[in-house]
Amino acid sequence: MIAKTAASGALNLLPEVLAFSTSLALDKQLLREDLAGSLAHLTMLSRQKIIAVEDAAAIREQLIDFWNQNAAGTLQLPPEEDVHMAIEVLLTSKLGTTAGVLHTARSRNDQVALDLRLHVREQCLDILSLLSRLISLLADQAEQGMDLLLPAYTHRQRAQPISLAYLLCGYGAMFARDVEAFAFALNQADILALGVGAIGGTSLPIDRETTQKLLAFRRITRNGLDTVGDRDFALDFSYATTRMLLHVSRLSTDFIDFSSSEFGFVRLDGNIACGSSMMPQKRNPDVFELMRGKSGRSVGNLMGLLATVKGLPAGYNRDLQEDRAALLETGPLARSVLSMMELSLQHVSFVRERCLAAVESDYTQATDLAEALVKKGLPFRTAYQAVGTLVRKCQELMLPLAKVTLDMAREVHTEFDQTVLLAANPAGSVAHKANQGGTGPASVKQQIALLRQDAQTAEALSTSVPRLDTLFLHLKEAAL
Amino acid sequence: MIAKTAASGALNLLPEVLAFSTSLALDKQLLREDLAGSLAHLTMLSRQKIIAVEDAAAIREQLIDFWNQNAAGTLQLPPEEDVHMAIEVLLTSKLGTTAGVLHTARSRNDQVALDLRLHVREQCLDILSLLSRLISLLADQAEQGMDLLLPAYTHRQRAQPISLAYLLCGYGAMFARDVEAFAFALNQADILALGVGAIGGTSLPIDRETTQKLLAFRRITRNGLDTVGDRDFALDFSYATTRMLLHVSRLSTDFIDFSSSEFGFVRLDGNIACGSSMMPQKRNPDVFELMRGKSGRSVGNLMGLLATVKGLPAGYNRDLQEDRAALLETGPLARSVLSMMELSLQHVSFVRERCLAAVESDYTQATDLAEALVKKGLPFRTAYQAVGTLVRKCQELMLPLAKVTLDMAREVHTEFDQTVLLAANPAGSVAHKANQGGTGPASVKQQIALLRQDAQTAEALSTSVPRLDTLFLHLKEAAL
Amino acid sequence: MIAKTAASGALNLLPEVLAFSTSLALDKQLLREDLAGSLAHLTMLSRQKIIAVEDAAAIREQLIDFWNQNAAGTLQLPPEEDVHMAIEVLLTSKLGTTAGVLHTARSRNDQVALDLRLHVREQCLDILSLLSRLISLLADQAEQGMDLLLPAYTHRQRAQPISLAYLLCGYGAMFARDVEAFAFALNQADILALGVGAIGGTSLPIDRETTQKLLAFRRITRNGLDTVGDRDFALDFSYATTRMLLHVSRLSTDFIDFSSSEFGFVRLDGNIACGSSMMPQKRNPDVFELMRGKSGRSVGNLMGLLATVKGLPAGYNRDLQEDRAALLETGPLARSVLSMMELSLQHVSFVRERCLAAVESDYTQATDLAEALVKKGLPFRTAYQAVGTLVRKCQELMLPLAKVTLDMAREVHTEFDQTVLLAANPAGSVAHKANQGGTGPASVKQQIALLRQDAQTAEALSTSVPRLDTLFLHLKEAAL
Amino acid sequence: MIAKTAASGALNLLPEVLAFSTSLALDKQLLREDLAGSLAHLTMLSRQKIIAVEDAAAIREQLIDFWNQNAAGTLQLPPEEDVHMAIEVLLTSKLGTTAGVLHTARSRNDQVALDLRLHVREQCLDILSLLSRLISLLADQAEQGMDLLLPAYTHRQRAQPISLAYLLCGYGAMFARDVEAFAFALNQADILALGVGAIGGTSLPIDRETTQKLLAFRRITRNGLDTVGDRDFALDFSYATTRMLLHVSRLSTDFIDFSSSEFGFVRLDGNIACGSSMMPQKRNPDVFELMRGKSGRSVGNLMGLLATVKGLPAGYNRDLQEDRAALLETGPLARSVLSMMELSLQHVSFVRERCLAAVESDYTQATDLAEALVKKGLPFRTAYQAVGTLVRKCQELMLPLAKVTLDMAREVHTEFDQTVLLAANPAGSVAHKANQGGTGPASVKQQIALLRQDAQTAEALSTSVPRLDTLFLHLKEAAL
Repeated sequence: MIAKTAASGALNLLPEVLAFSTSLALDKQLLREDLAGSLAHLTMLSRQKIIAVEDAAAIREQLIDFWNQNAAGTLQLPPEEDVHMAIEVLLTSKLGTTAGVLHTARSRNDQVALDLRLHVREQCLDILSLLSRLISLLADQAEQGMDLLLPAYTHRQRAQPISLAYLLCGYGAMFARDVEAFAFALNQADILALGVGAIGGTSLPIDRETTQKLLAFRRITRNGLDTVGDRDFALDFSYATTRMLLHVSRLSTDFIDFSSSEFGFVRLDGNIACGSSMMPQKRNPDVFELMRGKSGRSVGNLMGLLATVKGLPAGYNRDLQEDRAALLETGPLARSVLSMMELSLQHVSFVRERCLAAVESDYTQATDLAEALVKKGLPFRTAYQAVGTLVRKCQELMLPLAKVTLDMAREVHTEFDQTVLLAANPAGSVAHKANQGGTGPASVKQQIALLRQDAQTAEALSTSVPRLDTLFLHLKEAAL
Repeated sequence: MIAKTAASGALNLLPEVLAFSTSLALDKQLLREDLAGSLAHLTMLSRQKIIAVEDAAAIREQLIDFWNQNAAGTLQLPPEEDVHMAIEVLLTSKLGTTAGVLHTARSRNDQVALDLRLHVREQCLDILSLLSRLISLLADQAEQGMDLLLPAYTHRQRAQPISLAYLLCGYGAMFARDVEAFAFALNQADILALGVGAIGGTSLPIDRETTQKLLAFRRITRNGLDTVGDRDFALDFSYATTRMLLHVSRLSTDFIDFSSSEFGFVRLDGNIACGSSMMPQKRNPDVFELMRGKSGRSVGNLMGLLATVKGLPAGYNRDLQEDRAALLETGPLARSVLSMMELSLQHVSFVRERCLAAVESDYTQATDLAEALVKKGLPFRTAYQAVGTLVRKCQELMLPLAKVTLDMAREVHTEFDQTVLLAANPAGSVAHKANQGGTGPASVKQQIALLRQDAQTAEALSTSVPRLDTLFLHLKEAAL
Repeated sequence: MIAKTAASGALNLLPEVLAFSTSLALDKQLLREDLAGSLAHLTMLSRQKIIAVEDAAAIREQLIDFWNQNAAGTLQLPPEEDVHMAIEVLLTSKLGTTAGVLHTARSRNDQVALDLRLHVREQCLDILSLLSRLISLLADQAEQGMDLLLPAYTHRQRAQPISLAYLLCGYGAMFARDVEAFAFALNQADILALGVGAIGGTSLPIDRETTQKLLAFRRITRNGLDTVGDRDFALDFSYATTRMLLHVSRLSTDFIDFSSSEFGFVRLDGNIACGSSMMPQKRNPDVFELMRGKSGRSVGNLMGLLATVKGLPAGYNRDLQEDRAALLETGPLARSVLSMMELSLQHVSFVRERCLAAVESDYTQATDLAEALVKKGLPFRTAYQAVGTLVRKCQELMLPLAKVTLDMAREVHTEFDQTVLLAANPAGSVAHKANQGGTGPASVKQQIALLRQDAQTAEALSTSVPRLDTLFLHLKEAAL
Repeated sequence: MIAKTAASGALNLLPEVLAFSTSLALDKQLLREDLAGSLAHLTMLSRQKIIAVEDAAAIREQLIDFWNQNAAGTLQLPPEEDVHMAIEVLLTSKLGTTAGVLHTARSRNDQVALDLRLHVREQCLDILSLLSRLISLLADQAEQGMDLLLPAYTHRQRAQPISLAYLLCGYGAMFARDVEAFAFALNQADILALGVGAIGGTSLPIDRETTQKLLAFRRITRNGLDTVGDRDFALDFSYATTRMLLHVSRLSTDFIDFSSSEFGFVRLDGNIACGSSMMPQKRNPDVFELMRGKSGRSVGNLMGLLATVKGLPAGYNRDLQEDRAALLETGPLARSVLSMMELSLQHVSFVRERCLAAVESDYTQATDLAEALVKKGLPFRTAYQAVGTLVRKCQELMLPLAKVTLDMAREVHTEFDQTVLLAANPAGSVAHKANQGGTGPASVKQQIALLRQDAQTAEALSTSVPRLDTLFLHLKEAAL
């Protein structure tokens, strides 16, 4: 049962109302954020002489104790309506009225905004680190896949021969964009919200820059009315996660299809494939299906957040509490999928022969033939039609394009020669791609190098702000 | 740590994969559904002589024991990948290989579909019961509010005088539509899914009609490929909930606005209003804000489900497991909001004077005046313009419409007379509304009667299918 | 440029505001609905003696003329803010002040609600008719596909042998559920909204039952405040469409995959497959991709509607005008996809040999073998393990399950005999499925019969309400 | 009727299929983008000697002619399946086979990606320019509103006195964040997609850096497989728009409420308020309702795009064509709302007396009193309780807080003195807010200065890339 707290003026609230309005079950995940935020606020209040140093010291001791107990798993939170009130009550039980000074020049509105921003910031850092690892892995695997050939697909039809390296660099390019989206989300979250009071500010001589430095925020929010009602940072984080998981969903569809008997391009190791003791050959790609499924969940969380803020008056409205479920699920969702993707990719192997057979038995090099004719001077659409005629002939003879003879080709158009026909070899097709961003080896090497850069960028971003643990270590020792 | 089960062929799955793929934390909420479903399946297998009666009896005894332990809160589920496997493992620990017969002619695919349907069905029943109570309450309150007048709003501007009863009947009409939506959702869920095997069926001589009767389903699914991949019943349930919560969101916006100092139409009892010990006058409408916020959450859950099924191949895909979070949150969300709404409405009182002042100080009876002129034979647009001129005059004199004198009116148009002017009295305005569906007393009485009917319909629907507890009682004793 | 209309009191609105607020570009699609609605209202007013018969006759003549001009494509709507005002202005240009009587006891709020409901009702009827045709086609094709075998898939892995008929009945089962959802949507839309005035009703002696009969509505809305602000019928229609298009998306994924070189199960006729003149062999399944893509669009339209109504005050708010884009797109979207699906399915043929090869070269009959052993008395899990051992053996020998010899089987377990092994034949596997809802021929025949019933139900529903054209014919002649 | 084009190999497509698959009705909006892109591609091909200069010159002449005709409104597009094919057909009708060289080393996949990116880039530039104007306006109005007092709201209850300037700076802070989101979207769109062929690249010696410079792109896409299947830039743009429109929705709710009779804080000029000729006093805030409604539409468009890409295989799938409706609606939606907001704010005036009366008649200065006591040395919670007691007393006497006498206050706590009581004056309350981000005048001035900076930043961003018109002017003259 949820307690009725004098502090929130809710002494006579019905227990059903308390049970309905409590967010403790969710926001206890914000305990560390709340303790760090309180410690920074306390330090600032003391330095500004708004509260007495002795009081600050006494409270600090307790906050540190709660932090340690929490780390040890022994902290018992009283059943208050939220984690912020739970800590206040715990503190009061230890220090009596002295506990009350901590709430000076602070409201629950800006405190919640602070905690949520600390949370999102920390999640972004973790995710950027995982993205860095995943991109590195793709770069490594791409390096190993320079000469494994398979078809690229458009409309789920074989379209052109590519190297595995190129495919993996394609996935890598998606995740590289996610680094940029999370950098944006990080930047939007990394702003100090504390210090604006309930909505209009405070008349006490607080110093927000001190708090900013103590909590290592890049910026300070500029308007309290906006600050307490703003959840854009949550939306940005949820959006970045959703965009990333949609990439995961597409990669997953590829791997699910590739692991089917029909494609047979990849083989999942037994220790990541779900099977059946009756059908031991079964290697179900459940991990990829689950990752794809989780993208749907993330889309829903984003939608929920958007719908929740839509049409609210400016300023704080209690509706905003309903951001918790979606927001607090987002970080763990993103992190678990990225970890699982990294693990899974290490337990998937491409089956070279099946991949090669797929490119060799088809007509995916038709464009290459046409381009080879263009190089000899034919207008593109003419070359295009000549190749079309040749392909039709092959089809009638049930002959793959790689097996065309010079005689056959010359019957179609006299400009066909041996050099042109070389383009019909899948390996030649891939090797001759010359453009930036193509499957040609020079471009792919450059793409791999770019991925390595992205991985470094992501790692640098992930360490660009100290984590909560580090911050707390400093706050413990900071001058009061 | 999640166990590696021989049964699912997952003996060598990496622990990270098991942790990622387990749904036990969520689907343990389906324990009762799973036990009831298993008991019905067992009974059918025994009656069909597919398994031995002794085996069936032994298993039944255990299942009943699990049920009782669960009711007592003492059941410990082993850390398996889902609740279904957890129960199988538990059963095996008691009965050895005998336990294995329970899985005859059943796959996890149809078992999950069964459990989810049992869950949705039960939630719909509970929700219909709560809707019945809420609609009854609105009918009761409407009866008390026949002669309390307030403005109806369009564009958040005062539009016409209405009675409180009419306002409450308006909300009631929304919830009455929800009864129909939940009746639809119930009907879609109330179909036996068990008995289609993994996807194609079974060659064993099962009898799905027996299982249907034991579990009191209205219908039987007709195609296994569809059955194991279908989550329409979950979508329908999520949609009905979302639609209902959007009604709640609109009612909540009204009550939030009405409880502002500016409107002052309602007063929240102290035991549902959140306050502040410093500002004891504060009666914040947090409960209504939270209910409105939860509508956003529900929109998100619906979106998540839609996105999850979008584009999946037909048949079973593991992505579908990701329905759990959204689906299992939906019932409790709907139920908690309905309960809170019922409670809250009992702790809100309308402030008669403030409401009346709002209708009396404005020009909301203009249409009534025009219609009174129409009754005297003027074309509508002419009457409309005459009243427009009169209102403009009043405005210049800062006179509310109810205070217009006959002389003033006649200056505008000679057809004005005393009878016409009576329509400018707010009470007269309301009383003279004659149409079905209007705020006139005869229509409102009819509306209240309809609400009472709806409440009965909802209650009847909520008891049209036995609850799980009742089913289980019968299953315990059913002939094997 | 949008006109400034005296009637709406907007004489001095800035042109930018008029341009921003006009909905004519969209709601001119509601012209027929508006004319029919006006004609019914007019008839009722005249019969109730609220307006003069001569006036009614004069207006009727004009409305009929507009209808005919519209049918001939010659009607020019003046650039008013919406279709309703455009017609009023047009009428006034013909009849002067007489035109004004049409607006007696009617507001734009209930007029819009009426038109939208007439629109949704008509769309539902059309969609139900198309669903009927599609389901019939699936039944026809299923009859032809009783003995074409292919694998059913779980996790995109071959799971069990099924017949094509069973697959098609699976799709049919989805669309049969859509008939129920559209029946619900139809029922929710088919309610007369006209006659509640702006929000509170009217004091004029209208008779809503007359209007109801003239427009063939099943029910009458019960509360005006609810009526003018209610868009549930639009949501229900959008939801039903979205649910149906998600089915389409799943079927489409199957056909896209099936038409890949890797599966090779289906062949698209050249006249529905998009190709390339260079690669004449290309038969891209663009139609299925587009249909799948349109499901995403529909999800968006639904979400847009939900977000728009969320949190609005009860009653009419102009936000509701923003329902138009999503709502008016929905019907054509649903109808075009259903027509295209019907057409496409007639131009897809299944490649019997490729389908059969897929079932024969795999181990999808393992469950059948196990069940055959169960029939001989083995407990299921024991049978399951025996078959597992046999499959493993086959795999080592690279032998499909259908080629197992009795000797090989007996080495694994002595209960294997010739009858048991017959179950390993894919045709036998399908033939022996005995359960309701399985792929066995008896059940599939029953499923086909059910589809035929569904098609009839859908057709009956689609003709359960007269279409606008028919209604208008009657209204033209109705007694005034 | 849609033409059947040889070029796309669709000679025998059924007319229904063509009608279903055409996107011309939508993508003709991309005509200018397509012409500019083609001109740049042509120039590059010519410079790289891949095509003959004479051919390039001849094609260029035509493309310029199309551009001019389009500007003059005289260009007739043939009914092809999309705008790209329509232009190719038009070109061929003028130049015969020469037209064909334009398609050298280009596929529709990268061409579409290019056009969409050019479109999004241009829209972002326009939107940033409009945001700049809106933020400037808010800064201007804030300067005028430094001494107009009104309540800030939490829970739609009066919470603290603030200045109008602070309220407007709060809205400004929202839009300032939107500048950052659109800067991100711009950066994500501003990448050259052309030059990757259908998916794998080209063997012709193209130079993407030349094309990049000609089209003034900041970056070049790095991997073709990703490039042709990527719609992240569309998602980012849609997300930024949605986030911005949610801000608009919140501001709109405020203005709708503020313009109600109950609040009476703002008065809408007659030329933006929708009225009624019968109720001339009516000044309905339709423009704000419509803007709020449009946020719902934008949420839907975003969700539609997310759902469309979810689960697609990597590479190009025709589903992506279904991005058009949502994407092409987004720019106009955002621009029209921003323009309307700018216009509307200039036609809204705040009613000083009503606003002041609201702060003076309430207890919103309670925190200020408490903080004044804290400054005298009381612990916060003690001060908080003392003020609580005082407020309760006032309430009993029906006395607003500003009217408290020193005697009354001293009865509650002896630390109350004249200085403390000054804090109860609303003007004093605002004036004494000292924190960064508060409603105190120093902070507000700083906030206004920041808005001016943001406006400049937005304007600078909006001119950081040349518009299409400028680009085309250069391309017309560029060396071939």
